[in-house]
Amino acid sequence: MKTPMLLLFLYILFVGCECDYIFQTKYTDVPVDHFSYTNNHTFKLKYLINDGNWSDNGPIFFYTGNEGSIELFAENSGFIMELAPKFNALVVFCEHRYYGTSLPFGNLSYTKPEYVGYLSSEQALHDFVDVIDVLQKSKYGSNGPLPVIAFGGSYGGMLAAWIRLKYPASVLGAIAASAPILQFTDLTPCGIFNNIVTYVYASTSDSKCSDAVKLFWPSVRRVTKTPEGKAWLSSEWKLCKNITKDEDVENFIDDISNALVNLAMANYPYPSTFLGDLPAFPVNAICTKLKGFKNCAQDDKKFLSFFGNAMNIYTNYSGKAKCNDFGDVDGLSTSGWDYQSCTEMVMPMCSESTDMFENSAWNFDKYAAGCLKRWGVKPRNPSEVILQYGGKNLKAASNIVFSNGLLDPWSGGGVLSNISKTVSAIVIPEGAHHLDLRSSNPADPPSVRKARKFHSDSIHKWLKKYYQERMYDERLLVNLLMK
Amino acid sequence: MKTPMLLLFLYILFVGCECDYIFQTKYTDVPVDHFSYTNNHTFKLKYLINDGNWSDNGPIFFYTGNEGSIELFAENSGFIMELAPKFNALVVFCEHRYYGTSLPFGNLSYTKPEYVGYLSSEQALHDFVDVIDVLQKSKYGSNGPLPVIAFGGSYGGMLAAWIRLKYPASVLGAIAASAPILQFTDLTPCGIFNNIVTYVYASTSDSKCSDAVKLFWPSVRRVTKTPEGKAWLSSEWKLCKNITKDEDVENFIDDISNALVNLAMANYPYPSTFLGDLPAFPVNAICTKLKGFKNCAQDDKKFLSFFGNAMNIYTNYSGKAKCNDFGDVDGLSTSGWDYQSCTEMVMPMCSESTDMFENSAWNFDKYAAGCLKRWGVKPRNPSEVILQYGGKNLKAASNIVFSNGLLDPWSGGGVLSNISKTVSAIVIPEGAHHLDLRSSNPADPPSVRKARKFHSDSIHKWLKKYYQERMYDERLLVNLLMK
Repeated sequence: MKTPMLLLFLYILFVGCECDYIFQTKYTDVPVDHFSYTNNHTFKLKYLINDGNWSDNGPIFFYTGNEGSIELFAENSGFIMELAPKFNALVVFCEHRYYGTSLPFGNLSYTKPEYVGYLSSEQALHDFVDVIDVLQKSKYGSNGPLPVIAFGGSYGGMLAAWIRLKYPASVLGAIAASAPILQFTDLTPCGIFNNIVTYVYASTSDSKCSDAVKLFWPSVRRVTKTPEGKAWLSSEWKLCKNITKDEDVENFIDDISNALVNLAMANYPYPSTFLGDLPAFPVNAICTKLKGFKNCAQDDKKFLSFFGNAMNIYTNYSGKAKCNDFGDVDGLSTSGWDYQSCTEMVMPMCSESTDMFENSAWNFDKYAAGCLKRWGVKPRNPSEVILQYGGKNLKAASNIVFSNGLLDPWSGGGVLSNISKTVSAIVIPEGAHHLDLRSSNPADPPSVRKARKFHSDSIHKWLKKYYQERMYDERLLVNLLMK
Repeated sequence: MKTPMLLLFLYILFVGCECDYIFQTKYTDVPVDHFSYTNNHTFKLKYLINDGNWSDNGPIFFYTGNEGSIELFAENSGFIMELAPKFNALVVFCEHRYYGTSLPFGNLSYTKPEYVGYLSSEQALHDFVDVIDVLQKSKYGSNGPLPVIAFGGSYGGMLAAWIRLKYPASVLGAIAASAPILQFTDLTPCGIFNNIVTYVYASTSDSKCSDAVKLFWPSVRRVTKTPEGKAWLSSEWKLCKNITKDEDVENFIDDISNALVNLAMANYPYPSTFLGDLPAFPVNAICTKLKGFKNCAQDDKKFLSFFGNAMNIYTNYSGKAKCNDFGDVDGLSTSGWDYQSCTEMVMPMCSESTDMFENSAWNFDKYAAGCLKRWGVKPRNPSEVILQYGGKNLKAASNIVFSNGLLDPWSGGGVLSNISKTVSAIVIPEGAHHLDLRSSNPADPPSVRKARKFHSDSIHKWLKKYYQERMYDERLLVNLLMK
């Protein structure tokens, strides 16, 4: 190993990757309702701040938090901290309202429509604008407001793109990683997501892996028809939550689907802890374990035992778990996101016979009825997000980079080709869900290094133009004052 | 008179000007709250539609209504109807929520913070987007969504600019006439407005006119100190609402200030009925009547009689009024606008010793206290509008024309110089408040004709680019499908 490579390796091992960057935790009061005046409630919104690299009026790198505790995203977006020294940037990770500890009504936040109703992307974007305003008016902005670059991955990436669209005076440009802004009604076929997941499983060294998964659903349904079968599966799979009712079976099937999707999303080339404690290329890992499934495919119980053993990759890779929990990922809030999906974020999903999942059609009315039952609300208009943010029509946008990994199921709803000179799309063929925002790693494929370089170059270009114009404006001002 | 001029004159006399264009009145249900989900109330929003000129998938000319009945704006924005045949445009005038008959809670709309609280510009903009969506999905949009050009004057002009900023996928471009989008905290000195009003009065044939006005305030205060003086003034001025209390005096003084401002705003070169029934150049008219004020300036009652007689220009130009009413202008809602000024639309105003008004400083705390007393709310943040719409930073905007008449007091808070290649500013030196949106008239100064030509050329340019791109997109699509 040559010296520079060795140094890089050591650097990444001890500093750049999996390291704990130190953030100060701060809070600012924001209104519960930014757009109406029926009440004047406020609440404390959390943000993490690191000014260790900030100097010479450098920009603010502002992560627009998504559906979980902000720490989860700060820990899994090391690229932003790696980039900060180059731009002398102040780094801020801002939590999204109703997640983590940023709960407008404390523990009651999700209990009633009157409380949970203020959970919306528009409200969240305005929260971020308020925090930016606070920062720009603080000691950091004492020489004039600092330019802001928004970053985000997944829903956070959607918010990064949208905050640039909606508040271009507050945010100069945005890096929107794995942001499925087109995963909405009539913009993207409902089947693409599950097509991609299937493709990812079928593209492993064992191309029959998706066939193995396809067998799982009828098998588990046959076995769990009886109470005995439910008990057997609960015990055989060492489930933390026993399956006792038919409703539990449905939830279990949903959980396994989600687990398989999460494995695809977190199909990084090195071990990660983002969506659970996972090995490198976790889809490969599970598919390796599923090799030879045909030997037991004739016997449901044998097959389910075999399949359950493979699924341990997801729930118990460390070997330390006492039972297997296929429920929520630590730090992510599925109920918050479920509420958002029941109001604004209606993402039609379906599954076709060529997919490795059970067939399912998209049925808006059924979906809305489920929402009404769970939350007492239904989507106001399935096209609300399109009306709000413009859908495919991004002609008036500027200074946004959309990046997508083609191993990521969400890439189907992503922006995959350039929109204009200043709204670009970067494709990372070997990338899973916002791999580019993660700390650099020796195992990174060249395409993600290239994407990170593109991000850096884009930010450099936006900032250069900004500073040039500001200098010009200031010179103009001086000239006017001198007259 | 040469034949073309004669024809033009006849055309304008009988068709182009003061004519009643025929609109269909329609309603669409919109949510009371677009940005939260605490309730699912809807209400009927009114809009006027004229499709007499619409053909060949022409665009929608969409007037973003302001603080009054939409009919008032439709009747005073004849330019839009004059322009419609040239572009085969569908013309829509959409009412602003909480004005005219678009009351979310009927007669109760202004009675409680829980009801009036949904009166905000953000909610109104989304209403407009919903109506545009309805139109684009109706028979008019059966060959693909029609491009939309927003028009508006004054607050409506602000909304036209802002809807393009915030919803560029719904609105292709905007003509923002006399839109004081910079009349906010720290963007524009608080005195500019009254400086301009004073300048307008001082620029008439009688340059001492503003001095006459300046004498009015101390004089009326001296006379109305006693009950006898209050009674005398009420009778001498034939006031519809007698002055009996000290509070009435303050309101009366406010009303006279507003009247003098309205005369400047409506200082059109021909008679108009927009802000009352007024003669051509009403400021000239009143100033002509105020000539020779010095002869009675030593005697308060004589002077007030003389001044009251001049003010008849404002309240009783037709000579038909039985008493003089200096209160609200028909169709405009001062209480709705007062609420908006107490929440979002905080426009700092002050008056200096060189102005023709009484001296008054801008005092935010006092202002906010008044709001709390009247409405139970105070401005959440005096910079709210700037955070929301970007203040002076319009670098990311496109396809907007800002036009301002320099006789208009609101031009002080307008955009008076070009922002970029696609965000232009047009100045109409002889123009009062959104003169350019009014029907053409033989008395129009050349500068307003030029402004209207610029509007037309801008719209032509935006639409040409839009159709070219759409054709390109469609050809591309066809090519893709042919593969």
